[in-house]
Amino acid sequence: MTEMMEIPPRSGTAFLLPAGAALTVIDPCGQQVSDLVAFSQIDVREAISNGRTFDYEETMLLTTGNRLWSNRSQPMLEIIADMVGRHDFLLTPCSEATFRHFYSGKPVHRGCLGNLAEALAPYGVGADGIPTAFNIFMNVPVDGETGRLRVLPPLSKPNDNIRFRALMDLVIGMTACSAFDSNGGSFKPIRYAIARD
Amino acid sequence: MTEMMEIPPRSGTAFLLPAGAALTVIDPCGQQVSDLVAFSQIDVREAISNGRTFDYEETMLLTTGNRLWSNRSQPMLEIIADMVGRHDFLLTPCSEATFRHFYSGKPVHRGCLGNLAEALAPYGVGADGIPTAFNIFMNVPVDGETGRLRVLPPLSKPNDNIRFRALMDLVIGMTACSAFDSNGGSFKPIRYAIARD
Repeated sequence: MTEMMEIPPRSGTAFLLPAGAALTVIDPCGQQVSDLVAFSQIDVREAISNGRTFDYEETMLLTTGNRLWSNRSQPMLEIIADMVGRHDFLLTPCSEATFRHFYSGKPVHRGCLGNLAEALAPYGVGADGIPTAFNIFMNVPVDGETGRLRVLPPLSKPNDNIRFRALMDLVIGMTACSAFDSNGGSFKPIRYAIARD
Repeated sequence: MTEMMEIPPRSGTAFLLPAGAALTVIDPCGQQVSDLVAFSQIDVREAISNGRTFDYEETMLLTTGNRLWSNRSQPMLEIIADMVGRHDFLLTPCSEATFRHFYSGKPVHRGCLGNLAEALAPYGVGADGIPTAFNIFMNVPVDGETGRLRVLPPLSKPNDNIRFRALMDLVIGMTACSAFDSNGGSFKPIRYAIARD
């Protein structure tokens, strides 16, 4: 039996994920992004890296069969199932600074960066150590000609999920994203479950 | 007067670049990539960030007028002139691991990561602290539909250059890239000059 955990809207959490375990991330309401970061339990300076992943997977669009790599060129997570097929690995977690930049006049929130920093502090990860996240369900189309990026509502429908296999002993940080644009204008929870096979 | 410096083929260097100074990076022979990383002199944990840059500039293709941002949401460098207009900010510096992965049977080289780590060590930057680089002159077309990345020869012709203005006191790491594919199959030097206005 696996227990279902919930990340409340605009918050974050961190937990250990042992090698071999499966992590399922569920979007219960639809159109909600979850920023995921990963670190080696042995040394949290080994962190998930979008650049290494793009290098080794030779694509920016990661789905079933792709692996997410560390800055030390080690595979950390494999995507073993994916009901959505559209996630982002280009953009950094939203933060106080991004709220001031993009949402002038709206209340400032500490965002995913603040939520991740608090959740990851007990594991020895500081805010500067939080890299570009794998933004589950985030929909960021790229114009290959101009390089232009747009942030559109996620393609995830209620109860869609993505499943990962841990390829090393990991510390995982995860959020229910706090930014307006990423989530189609509203804030919803994220659920997850861990299965140790 | 500004002095012209040369980075020999397959090597790297690091230097201080004060706020306000202009850095010109020249490709003397054409089709040669230079990986550039930047850190705050005050605290090298503040580092150049592709994700923050993509966020704030809203494009992956950076050229004259664009700024390169730090993980603390501060602008570090502005591109003030650019004769090529095609650079990459997706891929990590080549390394021993990437040589083993992509160039099976060819001699392994420590690559830009090894060169940067040695050059940056006196400034207190370790290998794990070297983020995805701004890869000057690197030509990485992206298929927006499939996400597929390709590494093609640079578009730079002999003596083409790009010029940056430092927006804070910086430590810069720079290479003449060591990877076969990035440079059209051969290894050439990179030159640079610093002007304090």
